[in-house]
Amino acid sequence: MAVGPDTFPEMTAIAGVRIGTTCAGIKKPGRKDLVLFELSEQCRTAAVFTLNAFCAAPVTIAKQHLAKTSPRYLLINTGNANAGTGEQGMVDALACCRGVAENTGMTSPQILPFSTGVIGEQLPVHTIVDAIPAAYDALTENGWADAAEGIMTTDTRAKGASVSFDYDGATINVTGISKGSGMICPNMATMLAYVATDADVPQSLLQEIVSLAADKSFNRITVDGDTSTNDACVLIASGASVAPAIDKNNAALYQAFVDAVISVLQTLSHAIVRDGEGATKFVTVTVDGGQTGDESLQVGYTIAHSPLIKTALFASDPNWGRILAAVGRAGLADLDVSAINIYLDDVCIVESGGAAASYTEEQGQAVMNQEEILIRVELNRGSISETVWTTDLSHDYVSINADYRS
Amino acid sequence: MAVGPDTFPEMTAIAGVRIGTTCAGIKKPGRKDLVLFELSEQCRTAAVFTLNAFCAAPVTIAKQHLAKTSPRYLLINTGNANAGTGEQGMVDALACCRGVAENTGMTSPQILPFSTGVIGEQLPVHTIVDAIPAAYDALTENGWADAAEGIMTTDTRAKGASVSFDYDGATINVTGISKGSGMICPNMATMLAYVATDADVPQSLLQEIVSLAADKSFNRITVDGDTSTNDACVLIASGASVAPAIDKNNAALYQAFVDAVISVLQTLSHAIVRDGEGATKFVTVTVDGGQTGDESLQVGYTIAHSPLIKTALFASDPNWGRILAAVGRAGLADLDVSAINIYLDDVCIVESGGAAASYTEEQGQAVMNQEEILIRVELNRGSISETVWTTDLSHDYVSINADYRS
Repeated sequence: MAVGPDTFPEMTAIAGVRIGTTCAGIKKPGRKDLVLFELSEQCRTAAVFTLNAFCAAPVTIAKQHLAKTSPRYLLINTGNANAGTGEQGMVDALACCRGVAENTGMTSPQILPFSTGVIGEQLPVHTIVDAIPAAYDALTENGWADAAEGIMTTDTRAKGASVSFDYDGATINVTGISKGSGMICPNMATMLAYVATDADVPQSLLQEIVSLAADKSFNRITVDGDTSTNDACVLIASGASVAPAIDKNNAALYQAFVDAVISVLQTLSHAIVRDGEGATKFVTVTVDGGQTGDESLQVGYTIAHSPLIKTALFASDPNWGRILAAVGRAGLADLDVSAINIYLDDVCIVESGGAAASYTEEQGQAVMNQEEILIRVELNRGSISETVWTTDLSHDYVSINADYRS
Repeated sequence: MAVGPDTFPEMTAIAGVRIGTTCAGIKKPGRKDLVLFELSEQCRTAAVFTLNAFCAAPVTIAKQHLAKTSPRYLLINTGNANAGTGEQGMVDALACCRGVAENTGMTSPQILPFSTGVIGEQLPVHTIVDAIPAAYDALTENGWADAAEGIMTTDTRAKGASVSFDYDGATINVTGISKGSGMICPNMATMLAYVATDADVPQSLLQEIVSLAADKSFNRITVDGDTSTNDACVLIASGASVAPAIDKNNAALYQAFVDAVISVLQTLSHAIVRDGEGATKFVTVTVDGGQTGDESLQVGYTIAHSPLIKTALFASDPNWGRILAAVGRAGLADLDVSAINIYLDDVCIVESGGAAASYTEEQGQAVMNQEEILIRVELNRGSISETVWTTDLSHDYVSINADYRS
């Protein structure tokens, strides 16, 4: 079950980036479960990682390596998260890096390791290292679709996005893949995204842009508020495009590039929500008129995390009392409830803090019957808007997460 | 479905407090739905109310009246929360107070109104006012059990608690009732508690004690993190006992009294969790070794609110990776994960931040199979412990909340 049509887009290759995917047999034989990214010497790489204090061993190693070198290979396995594995987990993640280094003539710090899958089981290092040559042999610029499958865990769909734009006669491409079934499964540790562009972007600006774009996409989606131990979002810039380098002083180019990256990351992050475990609805929560971004987000997340609202969404029940109560308990200081309006799509359900005079249950029901729903709150106390994306809470969510290990 | 045996305790009457319950026919004919408390002139009353900015009309009125007078009557209706009802809601709540005043020779500000039930429907004032004489005629010191039924909404059980202790040959009694099916249903606005004692307690101290005791009980339970628009906890002291007045300078008596009040409030609050919608487990989450109470609570609530942990509890799955990930994302600054131990009852599942060497799945499974479970986290960075209580997340939770209005 997932929300919206299952279509995998055309993926434009990024010169300077090759990808090989193979079946290592980590969890199940014959399943694509090992992905190798090869980055040209010109590539610059930036990333954002999970803030979970219990981050997995490969996250710790990847951060250390990224701080030291310009990475030349990324190795990603599914089937095992190498999280909660203690000191042995660190040894194992490094052994995977060494395996890639030996096959490619690089040094270990030039390799970034990533793992996703079950928490708390030791990584099958030999199975992974033995399969590295096959992944290496499979390297191709057109490897994005295979890789999108190769990083899946509980995902029911491969997730990809690719956009291009022209600047002064030159084309810049941004292509990426992600995995995650709703960020909801920290024991299937969880969200990964790999995005590459042929734009030429200085390292420090690349880091700024990936942070900014992740904030507008992966950091704005929630299925149940849980944050995985393994989350990572990587942005690679190969510089192969003939377009000028990205530079804040060239505002038009800079903005077009940031918009393209945000667009790819939003598509990839929305795909995770749409594929959220048990999801039957794709819900956009927009909060307008906050004094600060933080308070708009606070209201947005209180709505998006409320099990009562999420079960009402599952039931297609226009239960505006639950939305109003969530706004009321979001913890905003000096909240003037009589200034608040709430909309389902264009239907005003709450006006000046009370039931809207014009509202009829039929109007609300018509919106709730849709597969995609916008809940919009007007706080009317400032000018800052924020948007988060989420799903409903269904019987299947409980089944999937209650029965996962049995 | 509810956790633990369904037994209603013996309720000791409190001299100075009489209670009358009747069937007004607010929602269903023949159902006890209107409760009147009569307080003697000597009674002092203190209360804590919901912090939800969208508080219901009766909450606003009750707060105003309590600030002005010593209340002589409390009127509680179920079947309608009088919340989200705008200006008319205020007029209606005042009309109920006037109804009681006219039947009893009091003034309106001496009456505190309370409502619980569906949000967003106008209060059937005439139905309520017409039934006040019947509630008045039913007044008796032994009315606690009927009142416990009379304030129920989606509750499957009446909830009561009564304790007594002796001080220097004199007895002090504390008796109370509560309603709420897990605090989880702000559209069935939700938690109410009425507790009376024959102790003699100065007004300001009574307010201090009800706040303190609510903090150790009703403010430490959670089913899904939603806070109702109508929550209230009222503590009445009639002063009828021959025991000396409660006074902080008499530390032994003061502490015995506070302990008795906390004991009654904890029993009443735990009864709400046990009756939580869809609950199959009663879960105690204790966090030891925090630097502050706030950070211990932060970890406790992150665990108690995690849908992933709650579905694992429903499945009796000792999925320690989910607990570990929740501790890691609780947002504590400079958290040293290698200092952390986690226990299920007495079974150590995480030791020094990793899987405990001694742990076996069988041990964890044995604890998870129980109906009552203790999850205990040792942060080892301070000396402050906090405890919260919660339930699992079951299919029935989704069914009850998805199907509630249909």
